[in-house]
Amino acid sequence: MLKPFHLSAFLLTVATPLAAQEVLPSWTDSPRKAAIISFVETVTDEDSEDFVRAPERIAVFDNDGTLWSEQPYYIQLAFALDQIKAKAGDHPEWQEQEPFSSVLNDDLEGIAAGGSEALMKLIAETHGDYVPEDFRAEVGQWLHQTNHPDYGQPYADLTFVPMVELLDYLRENDFKTFIVSGGGVEFIRAISEELYGIPPEQVVGSELKLVLEERDGVPAVIRQGEVTFINDHGGKPIGIASHIGRKPIAVFGNSDGDFEMLEWALDGTRPGLGMIVHHDDGERAVAYDRDSLAGRLDRGLDEADAQGWHLISMKDDWRQIFSFQEPTDPAEEPQTAQ
Amino acid sequence: MLKPFHLSAFLLTVATPLAAQEVLPSWTDSPRKAAIISFVETVTDEDSEDFVRAPERIAVFDNDGTLWSEQPYYIQLAFALDQIKAKAGDHPEWQEQEPFSSVLNDDLEGIAAGGSEALMKLIAETHGDYVPEDFRAEVGQWLHQTNHPDYGQPYADLTFVPMVELLDYLRENDFKTFIVSGGGVEFIRAISEELYGIPPEQVVGSELKLVLEERDGVPAVIRQGEVTFINDHGGKPIGIASHIGRKPIAVFGNSDGDFEMLEWALDGTRPGLGMIVHHDDGERAVAYDRDSLAGRLDRGLDEADAQGWHLISMKDDWRQIFSFQEPTDPAEEPQTAQ
Repeated sequence: MLKPFHLSAFLLTVATPLAAQEVLPSWTDSPRKAAIISFVETVTDEDSEDFVRAPERIAVFDNDGTLWSEQPYYIQLAFALDQIKAKAGDHPEWQEQEPFSSVLNDDLEGIAAGGSEALMKLIAETHGDYVPEDFRAEVGQWLHQTNHPDYGQPYADLTFVPMVELLDYLRENDFKTFIVSGGGVEFIRAISEELYGIPPEQVVGSELKLVLEERDGVPAVIRQGEVTFINDHGGKPIGIASHIGRKPIAVFGNSDGDFEMLEWALDGTRPGLGMIVHHDDGERAVAYDRDSLAGRLDRGLDEADAQGWHLISMKDDWRQIFSFQEPTDPAEEPQTAQ
Repeated sequence: MLKPFHLSAFLLTVATPLAAQEVLPSWTDSPRKAAIISFVETVTDEDSEDFVRAPERIAVFDNDGTLWSEQPYYIQLAFALDQIKAKAGDHPEWQEQEPFSSVLNDDLEGIAAGGSEALMKLIAETHGDYVPEDFRAEVGQWLHQTNHPDYGQPYADLTFVPMVELLDYLRENDFKTFIVSGGGVEFIRAISEELYGIPPEQVVGSELKLVLEERDGVPAVIRQGEVTFINDHGGKPIGIASHIGRKPIAVFGNSDGDFEMLEWALDGTRPGLGMIVHHDDGERAVAYDRDSLAGRLDRGLDEADAQGWHLISMKDDWRQIFSFQEPTDPAEEPQTAQ
């Protein structure tokens, strides 16, 4: 009897640290990582009173600032500005027309001064009159071929490694992962499968008008330049109710645009995990919160604690932010209380 | 060498008929069953030039008349009429008001005479001002507790056994199955998981306006009585583009309301399977097509052949329609050419 006993004790000793290393390796051993693992282990444990059966394990993620970079401005806006510049040769009148002239002069304040009307014009011009599949192909190509001005890396490489790991970890535990973004749904669908393993049908975003019409002799669904739904703030619970049809039990955001979604979904009637990515790392990325134009986090900072939502510190909780950066050495991490 | 050879030959002999019996057992050995199996075997065969990788194996099903009964009228309408009657005690004015007085007098022609405006009033009265989850609970209860007037069985039992088998068979082959119905999305979500194994997020239907407002001190998404999207005819490709975000490769319908979806999705650029359930069985169910109010099939009958879509004969292709009926004896089936 001695031998098997020794063997299993040996295996146990070796196996535990190995397994611990394998889960979420880009996360430091912080209370946030512990909270994620504890939540997942609880809701997947059939003997727990907080067990949640697999079809109800819905996890939703904001995109800009939660899964990838949103500074100095939303990647989708960078795409729109590039498209305007590329088309400007065919539109000499744009030199005198706002918001186009501001775009051509790289005058971001001028664009911002035009407010949402200016933004709608840019979207209509750059996102409308497309078959969705063609639009996605253009977006995909642009994301891979265009470098971010500060990082000097393709926009497609600006995803946050620890969040992509988190998506995988949740799916391994039979969660169904969705993106619920204020960004345009077709822009995100262009790369959601490649970058996040999330298929188009699991992307909820802002919407343009769709019409069915004949193109080249066959029926085609065409996107118009008219915005019909803004999936931000109070729009997010509506987008989820419409597209997913049940409340998520895990919600990840980074800005006050995610507040209503967190508050509505995590209503205390079932187990829930709410997390806000806090951009507090000014060295490996950009630090911003209360005063930022993109990804403003103000109310969420004040209320997260009372709501029971976790603030993820990018500086302390992540060994690596982008794949093109070296991870920090776990041995040099401060020991945090779990 | 002889023994293993004999053994495998023996296994082959035994295994083939067994396997053939196991797939779609409620379908007769008709060309339609053969077409389904051939299509599935082709798109799942990595060596085939028509191989389709799993995430793109999207199959969509109409609901009324395709997955369950729609005669003498849509089950959702039966629910609405019952709700009006149940509420009539609180609304004495309905005795004099259309379309309510027609409902209370069981005057279907009177309701129909009111057209879509009358229908909208009934929907607003019976479907609006609900939290979706509460509405679904009411619908689920009603479907289980209310008997169909002709079959004398609960409405929840009026699903077509061969189609439920088909849903399972497709999912076993890594298809993702969706309902794309002209019916109300929340009505179907009430029972899609239980009856069809389809979760709420894979149901696309007609939509009512949703608003986020405070109820009992917490934010709630409330359905209003206003119809914002009709997911029928040309609406189906739009509903699919919005909710699923890619074209299905397998499309199942039964009426001309499915025509545009079949035509748009099965565009010939990829392998595709289009099938129309033809209600030609007047013995076990109701026979109807060109002149029916619910589930009118006219254009589809004329054009199915030229489009390459298969007409499923409920009379000839199905051994069983409803679970409460006895299946026919395979030995007594006519031998059809495959």
